[in-house]
Amino acid sequence: MDLWSAPGEPIDALRSPRLAHVPTFARLPLSRDLSDPRIKGVFLGVPFDTGATYYSGARLAPTYIRIESRLLRPYNYVLGVYPFKVLGLVDFGDVDVVPTSVEKTLDRVEEAVSEISSRGVTPFIAGGDHSISLGVLRGLRRRKPILVHFDSHLDYWDSYWGGERYTHGTWVRRAIEEGLVRGVVQIGIRGPQFSEEDFSYPRDAPVDFTMVTIYEARSRGFGWLLDLLKGLSGDIYVSFDIDVVDPAYAPGTGTREVGGFTSYEALELIRALAKSRGNLVGFDVVEVSPPMDSSNITSLLASNLLFEAASVKAYQVRYGL
Amino acid sequence: MDLWSAPGEPIDALRSPRLAHVPTFARLPLSRDLSDPRIKGVFLGVPFDTGATYYSGARLAPTYIRIESRLLRPYNYVLGVYPFKVLGLVDFGDVDVVPTSVEKTLDRVEEAVSEISSRGVTPFIAGGDHSISLGVLRGLRRRKPILVHFDSHLDYWDSYWGGERYTHGTWVRRAIEEGLVRGVVQIGIRGPQFSEEDFSYPRDAPVDFTMVTIYEARSRGFGWLLDLLKGLSGDIYVSFDIDVVDPAYAPGTGTREVGGFTSYEALELIRALAKSRGNLVGFDVVEVSPPMDSSNITSLLASNLLFEAASVKAYQVRYGL
Amino acid sequence: MDLWSAPGEPIDALRSPRLAHVPTFARLPLSRDLSDPRIKGVFLGVPFDTGATYYSGARLAPTYIRIESRLLRPYNYVLGVYPFKVLGLVDFGDVDVVPTSVEKTLDRVEEAVSEISSRGVTPFIAGGDHSISLGVLRGLRRRKPILVHFDSHLDYWDSYWGGERYTHGTWVRRAIEEGLVRGVVQIGIRGPQFSEEDFSYPRDAPVDFTMVTIYEARSRGFGWLLDLLKGLSGDIYVSFDIDVVDPAYAPGTGTREVGGFTSYEALELIRALAKSRGNLVGFDVVEVSPPMDSSNITSLLASNLLFEAASVKAYQVRYGL
Amino acid sequence: MDLWSAPGEPIDALRSPRLAHVPTFARLPLSRDLSDPRIKGVFLGVPFDTGATYYSGARLAPTYIRIESRLLRPYNYVLGVYPFKVLGLVDFGDVDVVPTSVEKTLDRVEEAVSEISSRGVTPFIAGGDHSISLGVLRGLRRRKPILVHFDSHLDYWDSYWGGERYTHGTWVRRAIEEGLVRGVVQIGIRGPQFSEEDFSYPRDAPVDFTMVTIYEARSRGFGWLLDLLKGLSGDIYVSFDIDVVDPAYAPGTGTREVGGFTSYEALELIRALAKSRGNLVGFDVVEVSPPMDSSNITSLLASNLLFEAASVKAYQVRYGL
Amino acid sequence: MDLWSAPGEPIDALRSPRLAHVPTFARLPLSRDLSDPRIKGVFLGVPFDTGATYYSGARLAPTYIRIESRLLRPYNYVLGVYPFKVLGLVDFGDVDVVPTSVEKTLDRVEEAVSEISSRGVTPFIAGGDHSISLGVLRGLRRRKPILVHFDSHLDYWDSYWGGERYTHGTWVRRAIEEGLVRGVVQIGIRGPQFSEEDFSYPRDAPVDFTMVTIYEARSRGFGWLLDLLKGLSGDIYVSFDIDVVDPAYAPGTGTREVGGFTSYEALELIRALAKSRGNLVGFDVVEVSPPMDSSNITSLLASNLLFEAASVKAYQVRYGL
Amino acid sequence: MDLWSAPGEPIDALRSPRLAHVPTFARLPLSRDLSDPRIKGVFLGVPFDTGATYYSGARLAPTYIRIESRLLRPYNYVLGVYPFKVLGLVDFGDVDVVPTSVEKTLDRVEEAVSEISSRGVTPFIAGGDHSISLGVLRGLRRRKPILVHFDSHLDYWDSYWGGERYTHGTWVRRAIEEGLVRGVVQIGIRGPQFSEEDFSYPRDAPVDFTMVTIYEARSRGFGWLLDLLKGLSGDIYVSFDIDVVDPAYAPGTGTREVGGFTSYEALELIRALAKSRGNLVGFDVVEVSPPMDSSNITSLLASNLLFEAASVKAYQVRYGL
Repeated sequence: MDLWSAPGEPIDALRSPRLAHVPTFARLPLSRDLSDPRIKGVFLGVPFDTGATYYSGARLAPTYIRIESRLLRPYNYVLGVYPFKVLGLVDFGDVDVVPTSVEKTLDRVEEAVSEISSRGVTPFIAGGDHSISLGVLRGLRRRKPILVHFDSHLDYWDSYWGGERYTHGTWVRRAIEEGLVRGVVQIGIRGPQFSEEDFSYPRDAPVDFTMVTIYEARSRGFGWLLDLLKGLSGDIYVSFDIDVVDPAYAPGTGTREVGGFTSYEALELIRALAKSRGNLVGFDVVEVSPPMDSSNITSLLASNLLFEAASVKAYQVRYGL
Repeated sequence: MDLWSAPGEPIDALRSPRLAHVPTFARLPLSRDLSDPRIKGVFLGVPFDTGATYYSGARLAPTYIRIESRLLRPYNYVLGVYPFKVLGLVDFGDVDVVPTSVEKTLDRVEEAVSEISSRGVTPFIAGGDHSISLGVLRGLRRRKPILVHFDSHLDYWDSYWGGERYTHGTWVRRAIEEGLVRGVVQIGIRGPQFSEEDFSYPRDAPVDFTMVTIYEARSRGFGWLLDLLKGLSGDIYVSFDIDVVDPAYAPGTGTREVGGFTSYEALELIRALAKSRGNLVGFDVVEVSPPMDSSNITSLLASNLLFEAASVKAYQVRYGL
Repeated sequence: MDLWSAPGEPIDALRSPRLAHVPTFARLPLSRDLSDPRIKGVFLGVPFDTGATYYSGARLAPTYIRIESRLLRPYNYVLGVYPFKVLGLVDFGDVDVVPTSVEKTLDRVEEAVSEISSRGVTPFIAGGDHSISLGVLRGLRRRKPILVHFDSHLDYWDSYWGGERYTHGTWVRRAIEEGLVRGVVQIGIRGPQFSEEDFSYPRDAPVDFTMVTIYEARSRGFGWLLDLLKGLSGDIYVSFDIDVVDPAYAPGTGTREVGGFTSYEALELIRALAKSRGNLVGFDVVEVSPPMDSSNITSLLASNLLFEAASVKAYQVRYGL
Repeated sequence: MDLWSAPGEPIDALRSPRLAHVPTFARLPLSRDLSDPRIKGVFLGVPFDTGATYYSGARLAPTYIRIESRLLRPYNYVLGVYPFKVLGLVDFGDVDVVPTSVEKTLDRVEEAVSEISSRGVTPFIAGGDHSISLGVLRGLRRRKPILVHFDSHLDYWDSYWGGERYTHGTWVRRAIEEGLVRGVVQIGIRGPQFSEEDFSYPRDAPVDFTMVTIYEARSRGFGWLLDLLKGLSGDIYVSFDIDVVDPAYAPGTGTREVGGFTSYEALELIRALAKSRGNLVGFDVVEVSPPMDSSNITSLLASNLLFEAASVKAYQVRYGL
Repeated sequence: MDLWSAPGEPIDALRSPRLAHVPTFARLPLSRDLSDPRIKGVFLGVPFDTGATYYSGARLAPTYIRIESRLLRPYNYVLGVYPFKVLGLVDFGDVDVVPTSVEKTLDRVEEAVSEISSRGVTPFIAGGDHSISLGVLRGLRRRKPILVHFDSHLDYWDSYWGGERYTHGTWVRRAIEEGLVRGVVQIGIRGPQFSEEDFSYPRDAPVDFTMVTIYEARSRGFGWLLDLLKGLSGDIYVSFDIDVVDPAYAPGTGTREVGGFTSYEALELIRALAKSRGNLVGFDVVEVSPPMDSSNITSLLASNLLFEAASVKAYQVRYGL
Repeated sequence: MDLWSAPGEPIDALRSPRLAHVPTFARLPLSRDLSDPRIKGVFLGVPFDTGATYYSGARLAPTYIRIESRLLRPYNYVLGVYPFKVLGLVDFGDVDVVPTSVEKTLDRVEEAVSEISSRGVTPFIAGGDHSISLGVLRGLRRRKPILVHFDSHLDYWDSYWGGERYTHGTWVRRAIEEGLVRGVVQIGIRGPQFSEEDFSYPRDAPVDFTMVTIYEARSRGFGWLLDLLKGLSGDIYVSFDIDVVDPAYAPGTGTREVGGFTSYEALELIRALAKSRGNLVGFDVVEVSPPMDSSNITSLLASNLLFEAASVKAYQVRYGL
């Protein structure tokens, strides 16, 4: 009478309807046993939104992403891989965040990711607001990956409201200052800015920093952007702020910017990494805010982005990258 | 790193925020091991709505009731009991329903409830539409309990649409015909009816059948109704159609009738059974339809009704009934 | 293959599910043939909201009231009558309102009601904002009924915004000035007012004017209020502003006031008229605003109020009043 | 005082505002009189969702598609035809489905479509879940058309949950097995699949089976896809699962897949058939689920797709195809 | 062309429709000039939710309470006072909270309230989660009032998640520990608790502490509860957690408990204080969470509670208390 | 303690969180002092929807556009200008419309715009239904600009419902008849039409009238359309009906047409004018209907369109046009 048979094996939808049972990610086994050698990837939730400067609500994202993930099936036709099976993917549960403290939460995120990563397991993370990515990168500090950052916002402000240094708008700068990343590729920037000085930081940053606005992506063409991603190599961490997608496709987020990518493009952007020489060491999709959503389509998109990211990793594992 | 310590022990909200982790009922352990002698009660979901004659959507109820149940704490102050601990309550998962077939689903419900009940375990069930209660009663057929049926509708029609005998509007008659119940107490009937003949069945039924319309309840007084419940004895099965509550308090249901009970009254109606000499052999709350709901308040109410029902059972266990 | 057999005969829900077919009121026949002697009552929609001073949206009320009315069954158990059959009720369709003009719309409402009434047929009307009741009363001017006005607002201001005399806040004064009513009974007034002078008009009005605030109703008791209604006699027109009901029960309205009646009380208020010596010459439920509603519960309540009103009339017809 | 003058003539919006009156499709006449020779096309609703394997709600689609269709005007500028007038289009009402039985419902759908088709009338159908298309094809079995199937899902599974052969995921296989179609053209497939074996059926199927994934459509270009459609000939039946469109444009459906077509493309896909040598023998738009929708935009899109399909047929009638 | 004439004078709704202009509280003047001697009361917003342990969203409450407050008119008929005019009420704007820090936010709340109070001005506050009331009480520390605390929760836990002492569940204990209140009257407690020890704190607290559960209120009767409030004297601060009201009347809050007060009762509870010998030194309504709301009815109720509280103060000013 | 320092200077989001304070447009100063020479542009709301022929709700647009505009920052990166600072932009408040009268409202709009324009100040307007643009053009009659009209509808009908000449569907014809515009460029027309005669008016109109359907735009290419806009010269007034954008991007509008522009394209269409030799004398975005919206994304888009329009004007001011 067990619900699950093995890591990477979801409850079979042809035996048990998709709406049945406790909603784990993709109906995969719930497990915290990292000593199981079959487990090479985990889904991890971070239900936190105290780093948000505008609308809150991202603390509900792991719940709703799990719900909408029940529709995910095991095979990625485009890449030709079975991500769940290849990675022995399980639902690891959530980080026990501290809702009243960004800094304590970052510690707990770091601790969880560090333990997962130290086992050679790749985390696929559902935030939370974007501040949590700093905790993840700290947990991966031995990797010092290139940060591939999809977002409509720059996220490299120094501080807010008289000295708040840990928010969803400052984590990129902190990650660079703390030496956590080898470089940054930022994609999708758009919308009104504070001033033209906003764009000077990438030039002055102590790491390689490539920034691609959506205007540049549109004028150079989407193929050019895919090629840029395919050209990456080495350890890569991908942080995907759902607001890089247009509010039509992803209304459920706190700091929306009109004029973004479509859902099809979002899938292609992730998928392009399978064709790179990069090695995916972790992935997060953040800033999904279910209370702002329309019939959960943003959580649905996020669950598909996690599927694509797991597929990229499985592709790399399977084809020897 | 295990999420749970023992049956009846939810994840501690003072350690891990309530929104964290996979939403099991009341954050209790997920377990299907009925051989564990600590388990005397289980939460069971039946995600099914094919028996509905009007709006569908009840198939989503177990999911959303679990989500809103995260707010439940372990102690019932009014009754002075710890229902989770006393019953060793766990989340058993859902019945693997067959969405395209009422009859096959009833078989599967019967099978699950029969197995649970044969172990001496009491099921606390979240439907699904009301047709599923027939399956539950079949699973409890050795008990042949009195059916305490809260509802705004009669549910004892013979058939619909040229011979459909298994629907959410016919299950009471089927249960009587199949000899599954010792008697029926029906509470809360209201709204327009087909004809005055609708009210003749209770008089002609082969079992004791008490029907209390809401008009009778209001004119005799709520205290009278509580006394009626307190006067029950023997094995009792409670089937609670959420539409007995007013749409203001429970908008999320498929066949709404205005002019119903308040949420406070609903809690009191369940709680009254603790003061009866009846023995609760099972409980269901049905017809919660999340797509019809307003910010999940109906699922929240349902989760509290399940809490009160478990408290009644715990009270009976604890105080020797 | 006809959908309907006769006036007053809805499509049978035991043959055809309630969600099937074009949503006429209560699934009754669509007919504009007032020469049919079987027709003694009609449902009439007035999809209009230009008289509203605050939120608009009531123009959608006839559509959504029809949708939710599909749940109505033919028999009123409390009063013991079959309103559809007794009145040969049909759905007459809507008035062809002029959305950009209150005054032209009032003319069209008057014309429709006058024609209906001249045939001895009783109109049961779904507004529309409350300004439309003036058009109805003009159409019934030969009756000069007592106006029984349920509302949280006074609706007897003289004008708005520099001379606008026809709005949902001025129609009571206009009806009195135009000599359309024999008296006014206003029930349910509450909420903040402009000044204490607001309450002087009833004293000075040229007709009998009884005003009952909800505070008075609560302190004297609901039974007292029912008795007041039962004491009425002669021709009566009932205008029911849905905002007299509390926003919990009727969120879908434009000018909400907290602290109102429950849905159960609303039904009882209408039903009390069956026990009066009054003769119901028409009924409207107005100010339902579907875009403000929560899962259509306000439209559902409105459809039940129309059912109760038709039952009152049927009771009067059946029992010789 | 009749609402309508003739088949194909909607209530004039310049006389009566669009929100007025009972919502028939496009405000066209409600008629079941197929002996009227002016009627060459009918709108038919199938309010059914028991064939759905995931979210329910499609049983409400005919209601909400009718509501949103009130905005449709009579002239198709792009094709240069008047579809309502050319086809004498009327609203035929709905099939009296049996909500608790897929198989009985398929019988009733078949019966209705067969009667309509035997009169030489073309049905334009609003489902319902996709299982209903099997009933339609049975009703058109004398035609044995090519099935043009727009969908994000394959719908040719053999069975679900231990032997359920009639669901929204199996109807294509059943239609082929029952010899109802001459060939299949499937367009828009995407999303995670069960396994790579999923794609073998088209190769082995006993009829011509062309499958175009969205990836193929995107890489070959949309013009290529339009040309494929324009190349069709003979009798054609089009079944349009609304989930082939992206959830941004069509959130109101039960089994959403991100990365789909835009609404503009959807219109163009239908319209392309006007330029083919195919003969449209029927059309359905299915899987619209109003409870999942955001402010009814999916029902609005569905009503426009029905308009385009009727325009294609009118174009064929008008220009001699 | 100025929008406003004087403190306490809202924009006239008979000149300018209620939906026009920037939504200040009750359309009153926006002013930060506390040196104006006409100003004896201010509306103050605290858009903050980082103290919440469950759903977030209360940071949006000041925005939506302002929007719904546009319906407030200047005269309180039940108390016979003009609260805006008597108090010269203005909208003071919001506290510049620090979303990432409860403690820094408490400092800023204290600072604002202290400044307001030092001018002899009474603050009427819209939170924000309940943690902000600690900041308010600090700002009023020279008053050391009795805290009248309406809530379904106890809010006197010591800490959460390993040492978090400043949350919406700990502020009452902090206020007592910091010597900010002379006594506590807690009204409306209900729902599941952690353990029976939860109820021991009031007995051991160093100040007078009266706790009234809703069960006690219901069994003793509502009149008893009103009398309890009327019996208060001395300086009083009222903190009104909107979740003391039932979710039917106030769905828009983060930690809902079924079985609460009605909106009519909530108004009466505040109003009773006018008949006490207490002196209202401040008022807050907290925990309104617009993203959880249904068509803003919770914000509407909150705006009416602020109106009643201002009326109580005006009554005291006017009638010499 | 003042909230604002100077025209064009919003409250700093790095000091005060964006959700704080009364929601003026873009958190800019609220001011009606047109004598201030620093003010060269104003935001003006027109909360009116009585000109709508279908769904109402646009009267709420100024409120919700202000709310969503809080996210706007001061710098337009694409054009390289600071629109708020360059124009000294302030929130002027709303026109005191007359909800029951289109014609009186047009007078008041004209009066306000005339006064603003006579000071050399450019109005950036949030309607309101589209009828209000006629009032704006009357207020700008001395300019007699070219009207650049983005819309999915033609809006040049002669009258509705027996003589209503002032509606959101007739204002273009009225503006031409009244000699208010030098020419018309209409962009984005689509959807079903009444008849082929609908397209004859532009040929017969007494001014230059260019009409571009979306089919033409798509077949010629978006670059062609941008060039058309860049080729304009002289005084230009832009009226942007939000329904020119697809319902996926702008669901919150009353008369939706599927198959429209994306949000990215909408921004580009406005921005193209910066590269023209036209002189922007005013801008409106109309038909935003918050009650129809999904989580306010339409209001968000409208606020960004206003930002782009202000940027175009600032670009012209800054670079000498």
